[in-house]
Amino acid sequence: MATIFSKIAAGEIPSYKIAEDDRFYAFLDINPLAKGHTLVIPRQETDYLFELDDQLLADMMVFSKKVALAIEKAIPCKRIGVAVLGLEVPHAHIHLVPLNAESDISFSKPKLQLPNEEMGAIAEKIRSGF
Amino acid sequence: MATIFSKIAAGEIPSYKIAEDDRFYAFLDINPLAKGHTLVIPRQETDYLFELDDQLLADMMVFSKKVALAIEKAIPCKRIGVAVLGLEVPHAHIHLVPLNAESDISFSKPKLQLPNEEMGAIAEKIRSGF
Repeated sequence: MATIFSKIAAGEIPSYKIAEDDRFYAFLDINPLAKGHTLVIPRQETDYLFELDDQLLADMMVFSKKVALAIEKAIPCKRIGVAVLGLEVPHAHIHLVPLNAESDISFSKPKLQLPNEEMGAIAEKIRSGF
Repeated sequence: MATIFSKIAAGEIPSYKIAEDDRFYAFLDINPLAKGHTLVIPRQETDYLFELDDQLLADMMVFSKKVALAIEKAIPCKRIGVAVLGLEVPHAHIHLVPLNAESDISFSKPKLQLPNEEMGAIAEKIRSGF
């Protein structure tokens, strides 16, 4: 059965798209830890990041770097933090989170709820720098 | 000036080594979030992960995968989480943290203090599976 992330990458579930190519898809986390919080996923359905073969894992990190540099151009922050937990959705994903303090990447803190218009504007701003 | 992590990779400051090659070094975090919490660094001194060139970044991720799989063999956990924050030591490093719950990767929670003997035993167990 397709995961929710596969459906997002296929366009069957709407998302605030940041970037895509034939193997990867990046979109805004709908419950962000910070404005600009983005998820990068492989189109290939694999639950656990470290089950990806070496080449796909390596290329996913390079794709994530390009996304991170585009987020940095759009969102004021010290740098982009990275997190992979993977205990909820069974489809490998890398969190890219604009950081100003270490606590910005704490997943136990309350998530932001941003209006659709603001999410759309953030996505467009990041996309334009990709 | 050499960073503390360069000195660790060069053996000038002792560490609980997990693995190394000519470009990367992995060792136990001395203030772990969980038993087996490991740091992977490039020998090259670069402050920010996303300033690494694509090839070194890609290879660092593949090296980290090998380390993560060795940690999993040694430490009971659901999977290995990944975090990169980088607001403290100015030398890029990837945290690999054995996860049982999402909160295991919260950097604001109190760190573990383990006796030297236990840190040594954990490192040896992980090394033997690398």
